[in-house]
Amino acid sequence: MSTDPVKEPLVIFTPSGKRGRFPAGTPVLTAARQLGVDLDSVCGGRGICSKCQVVPSYGEFSKHGVTVADDALSDWNSVEERYRQKRGMKPGRRLSCQATVQGDVVIDVPPESQVHRQVVRKAASARAITMDPATRLYFVEVQEPDMHEPTGDLERLERALGEQWQIGEITADLSVLGKLQPTLRKGKWQVTVALYHDHTGGPARLIDIWPDLHEGGIYGLAIDLGSTTIAGHLCNLDTGEVLASSGLMNPQIRFGEDLMSRVSYAMMNPGGDAEMTRAVREALNALAQELAEEGKIDPALICEVTLVCNPVMHHLALGIDPVELGQAPFALATSDSLSLPARALDLTAINTRARLYILPCIAGHVGADAAAVALSEEPDKSDDLVLVCDVGTNAEILLGNRTRVLACSSPTGPAFEGAQISSGQRAASGAIERIEIDPVTKEPRFRVIGINRWSDEPGFDKQVARTGITGICGSGIIEAVAEMRMAGLLDPSGLIGSAAQTGTDRCIADGRTHSYVIHDGTADGGPLISVTQGDIRAIQLAKSALYAGARLLMDEMGVDKVDRVVLAGAFGAHISPKHAMVLGMIPDVALDRVTSAGNAAGTGARIALHNVAARAAIEKTVREITKVETAIEPKFQDHFVAANAIPHATDPFPELRQAVPLPDVHFNTGGGDGEGGRRRRRRG
Amino acid sequence: MSTDPVKEPLVIFTPSGKRGRFPAGTPVLTAARQLGVDLDSVCGGRGICSKCQVVPSYGEFSKHGVTVADDALSDWNSVEERYRQKRGMKPGRRLSCQATVQGDVVIDVPPESQVHRQVVRKAASARAITMDPATRLYFVEVQEPDMHEPTGDLERLERALGEQWQIGEITADLSVLGKLQPTLRKGKWQVTVALYHDHTGGPARLIDIWPDLHEGGIYGLAIDLGSTTIAGHLCNLDTGEVLASSGLMNPQIRFGEDLMSRVSYAMMNPGGDAEMTRAVREALNALAQELAEEGKIDPALICEVTLVCNPVMHHLALGIDPVELGQAPFALATSDSLSLPARALDLTAINTRARLYILPCIAGHVGADAAAVALSEEPDKSDDLVLVCDVGTNAEILLGNRTRVLACSSPTGPAFEGAQISSGQRAASGAIERIEIDPVTKEPRFRVIGINRWSDEPGFDKQVARTGITGICGSGIIEAVAEMRMAGLLDPSGLIGSAAQTGTDRCIADGRTHSYVIHDGTADGGPLISVTQGDIRAIQLAKSALYAGARLLMDEMGVDKVDRVVLAGAFGAHISPKHAMVLGMIPDVALDRVTSAGNAAGTGARIALHNVAARAAIEKTVREITKVETAIEPKFQDHFVAANAIPHATDPFPELRQAVPLPDVHFNTGGGDGEGGRRRRRRG
Repeated sequence: MSTDPVKEPLVIFTPSGKRGRFPAGTPVLTAARQLGVDLDSVCGGRGICSKCQVVPSYGEFSKHGVTVADDALSDWNSVEERYRQKRGMKPGRRLSCQATVQGDVVIDVPPESQVHRQVVRKAASARAITMDPATRLYFVEVQEPDMHEPTGDLERLERALGEQWQIGEITADLSVLGKLQPTLRKGKWQVTVALYHDHTGGPARLIDIWPDLHEGGIYGLAIDLGSTTIAGHLCNLDTGEVLASSGLMNPQIRFGEDLMSRVSYAMMNPGGDAEMTRAVREALNALAQELAEEGKIDPALICEVTLVCNPVMHHLALGIDPVELGQAPFALATSDSLSLPARALDLTAINTRARLYILPCIAGHVGADAAAVALSEEPDKSDDLVLVCDVGTNAEILLGNRTRVLACSSPTGPAFEGAQISSGQRAASGAIERIEIDPVTKEPRFRVIGINRWSDEPGFDKQVARTGITGICGSGIIEAVAEMRMAGLLDPSGLIGSAAQTGTDRCIADGRTHSYVIHDGTADGGPLISVTQGDIRAIQLAKSALYAGARLLMDEMGVDKVDRVVLAGAFGAHISPKHAMVLGMIPDVALDRVTSAGNAAGTGARIALHNVAARAAIEKTVREITKVETAIEPKFQDHFVAANAIPHATDPFPELRQAVPLPDVHFNTGGGDGEGGRRRRRRG
Repeated sequence: MSTDPVKEPLVIFTPSGKRGRFPAGTPVLTAARQLGVDLDSVCGGRGICSKCQVVPSYGEFSKHGVTVADDALSDWNSVEERYRQKRGMKPGRRLSCQATVQGDVVIDVPPESQVHRQVVRKAASARAITMDPATRLYFVEVQEPDMHEPTGDLERLERALGEQWQIGEITADLSVLGKLQPTLRKGKWQVTVALYHDHTGGPARLIDIWPDLHEGGIYGLAIDLGSTTIAGHLCNLDTGEVLASSGLMNPQIRFGEDLMSRVSYAMMNPGGDAEMTRAVREALNALAQELAEEGKIDPALICEVTLVCNPVMHHLALGIDPVELGQAPFALATSDSLSLPARALDLTAINTRARLYILPCIAGHVGADAAAVALSEEPDKSDDLVLVCDVGTNAEILLGNRTRVLACSSPTGPAFEGAQISSGQRAASGAIERIEIDPVTKEPRFRVIGINRWSDEPGFDKQVARTGITGICGSGIIEAVAEMRMAGLLDPSGLIGSAAQTGTDRCIADGRTHSYVIHDGTADGGPLISVTQGDIRAIQLAKSALYAGARLLMDEMGVDKVDRVVLAGAFGAHISPKHAMVLGMIPDVALDRVTSAGNAAGTGARIALHNVAARAAIEKTVREITKVETAIEPKFQDHFVAANAIPHATDPFPELRQAVPLPDVHFNTGGGDGEGGRRRRRRG
């Protein structure tokens, strides 16, 4: 059987460039496997799964030094022909398990035939996700039982997986053990199994089994469980494709808007924690069902879930009383990542044996959601010093580079989401989301969610009649306050000027303070939408908390400025960098160094769903992150007070001032709401 | 700190004989640990658990070459004194964690202070069980949380267990994770945990947690789930003590008396398997509750269960349809041992996180109960060739020695248990359990369960009036048939003689055959208790199956005789070796080489409960056992037919004939039921 290896055909794979000589008659798949080429196959070379499709190239390849003859591969055999007739194949493609090498050949492995194929993320700045999921399908041929060798069916399946897929020990729940015997017989000893094998070692888990080749695919959910909204992606665990994305309100809102009010609810009401646990688990099931419907798949094919959330959501979802998270030292019941059966969280809408992976928490105030942001934005791999702010009801803040990463959380409250604002509302039809104020006329123009024109453009009135103008959403209020500051309607201390001080009737008296009217709909029975002095104070509190957290990390890092800022969070995607900077939400950097990462926590959940090595990586990263606790750090209070001014009492913000005019107005005349002014003067 | 080690006090431990020199002031427990002495401690040396009690000896020890002065140990310190006053201690004892070495000393470690203490089994022939359970208690002091180092409570518990008990990674179910934080705080960061750590490696499982030192103990159940009865032992997992033993009927009996009729029920009735699964799981819960009540413990302290059973019970308990076990090739869904949460079998009566270990099955007909018998009786460690028969509705048969072990099962049917016998009944009050027949007068005398006199003894009638004489149990029918053979009432072919042939009126005509009357209670409205020709045929079928199985193994082993026989099974305990041999149930050996092992399967379950290494050992043994399938072996039929005669058509039984007279009678006159006789003649 030994032939001169020099005379054997040369096989070159692209794009890997791997090459080797093989005896004529070697299947292309076999050659690929021996060379370690990344080429998929679910059916193990039986010509039925078509995952191993390749594109042979013919002709002269001076780069590789070979000429590929037309007959470099074998003719189509009956298996390959049957597959083409039954299922169809793109022109130029071959099944690598059937086509054999006959002469020198160059074989291209298209992206969709690679095991570790990459899924391009939608967000512009994003890197690709390499597919390497914990749950995978394997087609396997099991030896029939025999009275002379009385091993169990499970043990013979295990042996077959070892021989055909080099998989070691497997374990099976009783529920799948009950399906094993009928399925093996229905498939005539050929079955497809879904195995879960994560990064922690240990035996692979038998998640499900189907007779013959299972062509329905398997799916995973990546869930970002927030205090206010629960967002989920339904993904194909083989291709990485996102079939559906959806979100729903966290029903726990009825127990309290923010985290601490939910912890209080648990403390004040016996069984209150269990009530909230039930509510959120029901919502998770509803979300799974909704996504399966939207993606048009059987929910029983959802075999895996990854979950990220803040520590209070984490404990409530797990059924752990969050009381310790409401008081120092904010001890988590467990901080490590968790790998659980999804049914431990009553996730009954999906496969009964689906696994659930929850990313590790960083600290009692910095949760798995922050870990997911770190996984998505990778501050630990950044050459320059990056500040990542995940802005929500609570802000998660990361600062770091290749050398070191710091993390903290800061209680911004719900003002950035439009709550606790006089005309505030959630981002929905009718909400003002963008505002510009003319610095000369002090007149506003704005855009409303669902309407594609500005308020001063022709046709706006007609369009807006459908939805009405109902309030201001989170990004709208930030723009409004920043624009008021730029237009000279608001002084650095946060005081709104009177009509006389500002020269516009839109500044109206409101008790001892003033408000700025953006839209008066009262003539038509609509609301008066204005920014009140109270609104300004709420935004000041929120932005001071965010800025103080960032500054605290900068102190710990020993720096005065950062190289770039990433705004994350569903809300972060809508914040305009310029307006955020005018408010002094984030430290001063060049405006083009502020980017948005969209829902980075959700992306982190999706990465962990698709790539098992990413789980090990983020667990390691989290162990190495330095946690800074804002609640016990005295400097946090100083930073908070100094950050009350707009943009800041002491930090100069040179980059901002170069880009944007900030009128030097002062409206405190000794009366009215002078607190902000007094504070500014004392420190300025 | 370094002192001359020769001048340091010498500490000698008994019974181990381990010795070493230690600096004055070394606690005795520390010295023991450094020397590797087997000395227990749950509280880790804090003077609260008292597990580490030792007995110092004083005076001259020429054997050891030391003299122990009265002040060889330190005085009682306040911790030790407080323990003695509060809890009491036996005279002469000291807490080894508190008493320190001051001079040369001899220290005895009493059995109850040894970690690997031995539990003596009750059965005469039995070896001791070494305590080394999978589930153990550990007292541990956990570091309080700290905002500067925000690990979770579970992670700090894990670290403490690593530091204080050298335990690696631990995992915790959500249900115990929810108890963790309040328990740690209630115990002021001192808690007792129950950890499950089995022989398969992997992380230890946190089964439960109690504040402070938990003094209520933890318990385990060893269950032998038979087709007819379910027997359980409640054991202390620390001491090995059996607190309670109990049994109840398997409620599946209503679906079929023997295994194959239950498999048929599952095949004929959709959902029938689930119905039987529910029934047996309810019974297991009821048994657990009953045992906890009897043992006067909280059932939530039952932290572990070991279960043995035959393959059909195995599948039905696990919720797997046993249909494949009803037809060749009798494929098990799984044959390996199983380690599961007990709640996977709905065992809700005990600790919700209790673990369940099921021994491996040997083959589709030879179950975990046979494996348990092998664990208890250890044929693989026997120098001589031993035949172990576990006699029940199905007989499990093992044959082997150090070189090789063979196993098979044989379908004896329920006749040995008194079923399918005209006057048969289960072993209960009123049942005849022993019989003797005078070979001259042909008159019987018997004993009835619950009555301590023979039927011909004075006072019997008065005593028996309470219960009545209601039938014959399994051991009674075996003795009756054997005694009839010895008294010349039954010929070798199994024919009962007529009154004329036997010379007694107790042999009455019964259609074309005869019956032997043991007790006629009809005058008082009671039953006529007799042995009919049909009864003889049922016993012949059962004993032929058992003998043929044994012979098949002997063929496979290449031997004509065995060195000894062990009768196991709850029923085996009551069989008289002489009568079993007269029947030809077992191969011919000297009668004193036949012993009873009692419920060896239950004992095997108890060994696996108490000693985790025994699990690894029996798993290895089972893999090495040669399985012989009676159903496909043509020689089985030949052996079965030849074994129909009493004791046997061809095997000479020299040992038996030496011990017992077997009259050479023949009752076949060409009429009546001559089948047995014809067969005998053809082969004899």
